[in-house]
Amino acid sequence: MITLTSDFGSIYPAAMRGVILRQTDARLVDVTHDLPRGDVRAASFWLRFVLPEFPPAVHLVVVDPGVGTDRRAIVVRAGDHALVGPDNGSLLPPARALSDGEIEAFEIDVADPDSQTFHGRDVFAPYAAAVHEVGVESIDDVATLAPIDDPIDVRLPDPTVSAEGRLIDAEVLVVDRFGNVITNVPGETLGEATRVRIDGERVPVAETFGAVDRGEKLLTVGSHGYVELDVNDGRGDEAFDLAAGDVVRIRIGAE
Amino acid sequence: MITLTSDFGSIYPAAMRGVILRQTDARLVDVTHDLPRGDVRAASFWLRFVLPEFPPAVHLVVVDPGVGTDRRAIVVRAGDHALVGPDNGSLLPPARALSDGEIEAFEIDVADPDSQTFHGRDVFAPYAAAVHEVGVESIDDVATLAPIDDPIDVRLPDPTVSAEGRLIDAEVLVVDRFGNVITNVPGETLGEATRVRIDGERVPVAETFGAVDRGEKLLTVGSHGYVELDVNDGRGDEAFDLAAGDVVRIRIGAE
Amino acid sequence: MITLTSDFGSIYPAAMRGVILRQTDARLVDVTHDLPRGDVRAASFWLRFVLPEFPPAVHLVVVDPGVGTDRRAIVVRAGDHALVGPDNGSLLPPARALSDGEIEAFEIDVADPDSQTFHGRDVFAPYAAAVHEVGVESIDDVATLAPIDDPIDVRLPDPTVSAEGRLIDAEVLVVDRFGNVITNVPGETLGEATRVRIDGERVPVAETFGAVDRGEKLLTVGSHGYVELDVNDGRGDEAFDLAAGDVVRIRIGAE
Repeated sequence: MITLTSDFGSIYPAAMRGVILRQTDARLVDVTHDLPRGDVRAASFWLRFVLPEFPPAVHLVVVDPGVGTDRRAIVVRAGDHALVGPDNGSLLPPARALSDGEIEAFEIDVADPDSQTFHGRDVFAPYAAAVHEVGVESIDDVATLAPIDDPIDVRLPDPTVSAEGRLIDAEVLVVDRFGNVITNVPGETLGEATRVRIDGERVPVAETFGAVDRGEKLLTVGSHGYVELDVNDGRGDEAFDLAAGDVVRIRIGAE
Repeated sequence: MITLTSDFGSIYPAAMRGVILRQTDARLVDVTHDLPRGDVRAASFWLRFVLPEFPPAVHLVVVDPGVGTDRRAIVVRAGDHALVGPDNGSLLPPARALSDGEIEAFEIDVADPDSQTFHGRDVFAPYAAAVHEVGVESIDDVATLAPIDDPIDVRLPDPTVSAEGRLIDAEVLVVDRFGNVITNVPGETLGEATRVRIDGERVPVAETFGAVDRGEKLLTVGSHGYVELDVNDGRGDEAFDLAAGDVVRIRIGAE
Repeated sequence: MITLTSDFGSIYPAAMRGVILRQTDARLVDVTHDLPRGDVRAASFWLRFVLPEFPPAVHLVVVDPGVGTDRRAIVVRAGDHALVGPDNGSLLPPARALSDGEIEAFEIDVADPDSQTFHGRDVFAPYAAAVHEVGVESIDDVATLAPIDDPIDVRLPDPTVSAEGRLIDAEVLVVDRFGNVITNVPGETLGEATRVRIDGERVPVAETFGAVDRGEKLLTVGSHGYVELDVNDGRGDEAFDLAAGDVVRIRIGAE
């Protein structure tokens, strides 16, 4: 099985599918091709969330703002999984989530690709197919892959917690298509709180959207385990006026 | 074969794919993940249109505005097909279209899902895979499924026809991505009419878009069998100023 | 293998998938369903770019502004590949790219389709499945296909080159989702130029986006082999104020 992820939208991913299918009859499964353009952090967040749902697979991941520059191209082995893509940090957070800790990285010997603007087609897709064919356990056998010990990592920022755990300075990691504002605050940080103040305004803590009236704000722990700022049947990003990268102060206990 | 339908857009459906592929190697076919958010009626309309094209399959259908509330989770058996999703009416209109009338419903025993906001991943996807593995004819064998006789139904509204069939008060069911305005008026209601008045304005009845000039309005019977208000190479919703839920008066014979 | 391409967006393509899967268990691969609506030239450009990446396959291609009119429905054989779609020119440029020159066209005998607005479902999908089942080499055996020698062709316009190759009047063929402005100028036309003037303004020629600063304009040869006008991490269409069909003057050597 090979999964495909990119920020390419439509059409360009088909070129990668074609290239892979010339090399292998593996099952292809799209993760998404609608990641925010060139946003390595968003890629790493979403892939850390989604890829662990999959059985062992080769994951082709191309969010590549540095395509054609001297950034490296890599394969990462994480347990029974492998990830193939640019060495810009997007691969390591999901790799950690896919393994019990041990991660190995290999640099791809990029000889002379057909283009300097579409390595998804010309470098990464062929390697994803090749790794699938040789098998994740045998990556070391691919002559054009050289072990490296310094793949670039991206660490998602931790929130700042103070006032005995009651004051959290959070950062917005991503906003999803529903407008849900996903922060970097792990759900367990909330404890048993039933209300919070968001930048001063009282907001209920709820298990799900339908627990508040339509159009009402809520704070919930999303399916990824992080605190979200949402609106039932509405857009949290607009209601809270927040976007990816913004900082927001959450005060636990709203008395 | 398992088909997947939701209003999740991109990324979230991949989590459902992964969960299913951990349980089965069934063929997965996407129907769409771009249904209007939380719109149960639109879901039932489109699925009634599309699912009958498929060979026997398990259809995972998640348009779930009540996720995490006490709405039930169900499996519906309709002939050789099964549908899995929330009990909110979205499943029954397509189920009727898939069977010769007989429909059986089963409630899923939702024990303690991992999340209260993503039952597509945590409840429905595992059940779709389980029903596929046991086989549609053996749904009764799944211990955690209990027959129910009162699944929620959604009936699409009928138009009001008066003046000896010449005056139709129609409702807009959905607007598609092309801006075609799809009403609740079955095509046969038109009889042999070649012209109508829409809210007073003359509009030709045509077999297809190209029968009128570019930019011109027309009324046609769409591929779903319902009357559409369209513009050749343009947007009917804008030209007629209509949206889902609006009422529009169609007078047959435009003299 | 059957690939699917259209301008249908979401939902409608699923009806084609269902129809095909009732006839065959071939692998289905989506190319895209987001082509510009009714734009035959854009369809032919993108398919000429993408389809040659695929192994031998039947390609269902439905960009069909004339659906339901008297335009013909055709199958085109190009080497080991076949294309199925409306006879409006969209099929021939990719067919030429898929074969070593020889192309054969067959007219589909469209008896009485279920609809006059959705031949993707009612005419082309069944024929794509049928051609797949009989095999591309045996298209002649399908009784309802009749050889024709005059399929409609679309020729992408050539640029006008003057002043000893230093002055190019180019046309914008398409703009991709990133805003990259793709012209009809083959990359080799540039020679060794390192700078050009675009409508009078100096722009560097670069191998890839990252070779210029963020937000800066560049001219590059895209992965399709044509000259693109881009902005690193921005939108070329906005920066250059260009859209599909526009003419732009490129002067090689920017002194």
